[in-house]
Amino acid sequence: MGAPPGYRPSAWVHLLHQLPRADFQLRPVPSGFAPQEQEYQQALLLVAALAGLGLGLSLIFIAVYLIRFCCCRPPEPPGSKTPSPGGGCVTWSCIVALLAGCIGIGIGFYGNSETSDGVSQLSSALLHANHTLSAIDHLVLEMVERLGEAVRTELTTLEEVLEPRTELVAAARGARRQAEAVAQQLQGLAFWQGVPLSPLQVAEDVSFVEEYRWLAYVLLLLLELLVCLFTLLGLAKQSKWLVIVMTVMSLLVLVLSWGSMGLEAATAVGLSDFCSNPDPYVLNLTQEETGLSSDILSYYFLCNQAVSNPFQQRLTLSQRALANIHSQLLGLEREAVPQFPSAQKPLLSLEETLNVTEGNFHQLVALLHCRGLHKDYGAALRGLCEDALEGLLFLLLFSLLSAGALATALCSLPRAWALFPPRNPSALCSGSRLSEPLLPAGL
Amino acid sequence: MGAPPGYRPSAWVHLLHQLPRADFQLRPVPSGFAPQEQEYQQALLLVAALAGLGLGLSLIFIAVYLIRFCCCRPPEPPGSKTPSPGGGCVTWSCIVALLAGCIGIGIGFYGNSETSDGVSQLSSALLHANHTLSAIDHLVLEMVERLGEAVRTELTTLEEVLEPRTELVAAARGARRQAEAVAQQLQGLAFWQGVPLSPLQVAEDVSFVEEYRWLAYVLLLLLELLVCLFTLLGLAKQSKWLVIVMTVMSLLVLVLSWGSMGLEAATAVGLSDFCSNPDPYVLNLTQEETGLSSDILSYYFLCNQAVSNPFQQRLTLSQRALANIHSQLLGLEREAVPQFPSAQKPLLSLEETLNVTEGNFHQLVALLHCRGLHKDYGAALRGLCEDALEGLLFLLLFSLLSAGALATALCSLPRAWALFPPRNPSALCSGSRLSEPLLPAGL
Repeated sequence: MGAPPGYRPSAWVHLLHQLPRADFQLRPVPSGFAPQEQEYQQALLLVAALAGLGLGLSLIFIAVYLIRFCCCRPPEPPGSKTPSPGGGCVTWSCIVALLAGCIGIGIGFYGNSETSDGVSQLSSALLHANHTLSAIDHLVLEMVERLGEAVRTELTTLEEVLEPRTELVAAARGARRQAEAVAQQLQGLAFWQGVPLSPLQVAEDVSFVEEYRWLAYVLLLLLELLVCLFTLLGLAKQSKWLVIVMTVMSLLVLVLSWGSMGLEAATAVGLSDFCSNPDPYVLNLTQEETGLSSDILSYYFLCNQAVSNPFQQRLTLSQRALANIHSQLLGLEREAVPQFPSAQKPLLSLEETLNVTEGNFHQLVALLHCRGLHKDYGAALRGLCEDALEGLLFLLLFSLLSAGALATALCSLPRAWALFPPRNPSALCSGSRLSEPLLPAGL
Repeated sequence: MGAPPGYRPSAWVHLLHQLPRADFQLRPVPSGFAPQEQEYQQALLLVAALAGLGLGLSLIFIAVYLIRFCCCRPPEPPGSKTPSPGGGCVTWSCIVALLAGCIGIGIGFYGNSETSDGVSQLSSALLHANHTLSAIDHLVLEMVERLGEAVRTELTTLEEVLEPRTELVAAARGARRQAEAVAQQLQGLAFWQGVPLSPLQVAEDVSFVEEYRWLAYVLLLLLELLVCLFTLLGLAKQSKWLVIVMTVMSLLVLVLSWGSMGLEAATAVGLSDFCSNPDPYVLNLTQEETGLSSDILSYYFLCNQAVSNPFQQRLTLSQRALANIHSQLLGLEREAVPQFPSAQKPLLSLEETLNVTEGNFHQLVALLHCRGLHKDYGAALRGLCEDALEGLLFLLLFSLLSAGALATALCSLPRAWALFPPRNPSALCSGSRLSEPLLPAGL
């Protein structure tokens, strides 16, 4: 109880995490997330290299298919006007491939926006954690200053006023000691002060990288969309030069698709390893970066019944000391004010300070409790391991679809284009009439 | 400070909120969200009715266009084989319209998933708030029971043991009074106990409705996708009956699209009014439903410096009483244990109880602080007013695109179909060869 419903690895994470991994010598590599180890890096590189293999195979397939098409069919007489029997099939398969590419582009846009959502959830969680951490520091500083100010001014005035009666001065001195003790205890609570790691900086770095990743994908998707549309236009207008240019562009986009597929696959596999059990890695990394003690970090990262609040002792002592100051001030008010009326003003001011400090203390207790920061941690993990991973898988599907569609188009386009009737060069500029699709040749 | 970065209305909310509203007598209606007022309901119904007007206009336009096409062109001799000059244009415009429809479907899928994301964010925020509220009740119950148990057993034992010395019995009685006071103060903190509104129930209701909304949209999108694909297939295979069936289906989907557009527009306008200033409406509604005092509700819904913690007084009193019990127990330990060794066991047990209670008290302070619940409120608002509204606008764009595409297709389909060559009925079943698109008639 107390801990918010946390992050649980999704089915995709389990599935990807169970895939076998191997290093360059094809020895199996354990699938725990260890980006600093060479074998693990090699395993990820090998996953990316699979996409390179796919690219090579599909290029070889296209080349063999086209060479077979150019060289192995019986030569037609140049003046022949009979349509090749597979002509309709070729153009239709090209259109179907381009439509599949367009569906892939839609999926890609969706996946890109999902990934971007997930990463922005991660950086907003980091910003929120930064807000909480700096609020703790700020609040502690404010409380310590307020107590110090009260000790310097009101308590000193009070001691001067009460000087004639030593037992009252002793009570005031007791309150001063307690206030100084509270200030010292509080200073120990600002645990993030002087820590070299800034979640704000991490969030900004993440957002910066994500911005360029998003933009690169949008450009790739737009490029592929333009290639699809202009290829369709070229087929419709039977414009040879447009189809040739688009064939070359398709080849370029095919290479880019396989390249992005490699990156996505390696990232998805690495992310699944991270997400299947993120706590130990994050704990270790944060401990290395911040130098904070492991009981503080596991309190925030685990936030369950098994981990006790590492600030409990300090908080209880501060709270008791504040209550003691309060009862001492009440005693002084009862004893001293009838005899020394000038003691009333500093006493009231001290009680006011104490009330504000107690209010701030409750806020500090709320800020220090693991719920808030652990919720941010959970939100960051959910953003990264659910939305971003799902988006990555959609992007992977896009890359697969577009690689398939472009390979099919690259096989069909030269054949469709070989079927175009020759035309005089001036027709290129005069805007030839749209061909009539779907209408029978005899009509 | 202390309040997490909250919700801010987006540009879309401002834009939609500024649109003029009118009731059925076309008198202007203020754009504040007031779903219980008749004028406001009329204004939303009028927005939905605009879609009905659009549907009527587009049906009239299609009818006029088709009647003009059927009746006003010069009758062709039935044996004529010359193609109509606009034939290619008609089929191409049909294809372009269907492609635009497919793009609209992609946008629709995206919008549907965005809306679903937003609503699931809302219900997960409600679930989280429910978790916090029930954790508060549970914790208070646990602390009160623990204190009551300590008062009944250990303090009674202690009083019996210390009976010979009345001043020690008085100190123990003081501790008992304080413990009872703390228990009473704590009971006042379980503010959600007995409240008839359950966020869990609301979240379940919202998820239930959203599930069906999501499913309805997916079915509509799939229906439109099937209509687009089968129409393209009908055009490609020149199957008259398929094109006729698809023309009728297109008409059905056109009506559904305009209908959904009306619902989306009215919902988007209503939602923008809600989202432009949600706090007063939510505050009033929650106050009506729960009967909680407005200072508690505004503390959680606003959670800024201007609203003080309504539990501050109770928390401070409980905290001071706990500290007093502690010092009384310390005093008893010092005074009584040398004389009555059998007092040590209940005293140690009491201190243990006190330590646990102080730990729980810090957790209670954290749970009661507005940060957690206000963050849930902000997440719910962001889900509803950012993701869900954005998704709704994408769905609106889908409806617009598909209404336009289907109207164009409905204008073109009968013309394209009139151009199909007549064929013998047996060809319908024998699967005619794919026509050769994009290849010139003369080839």
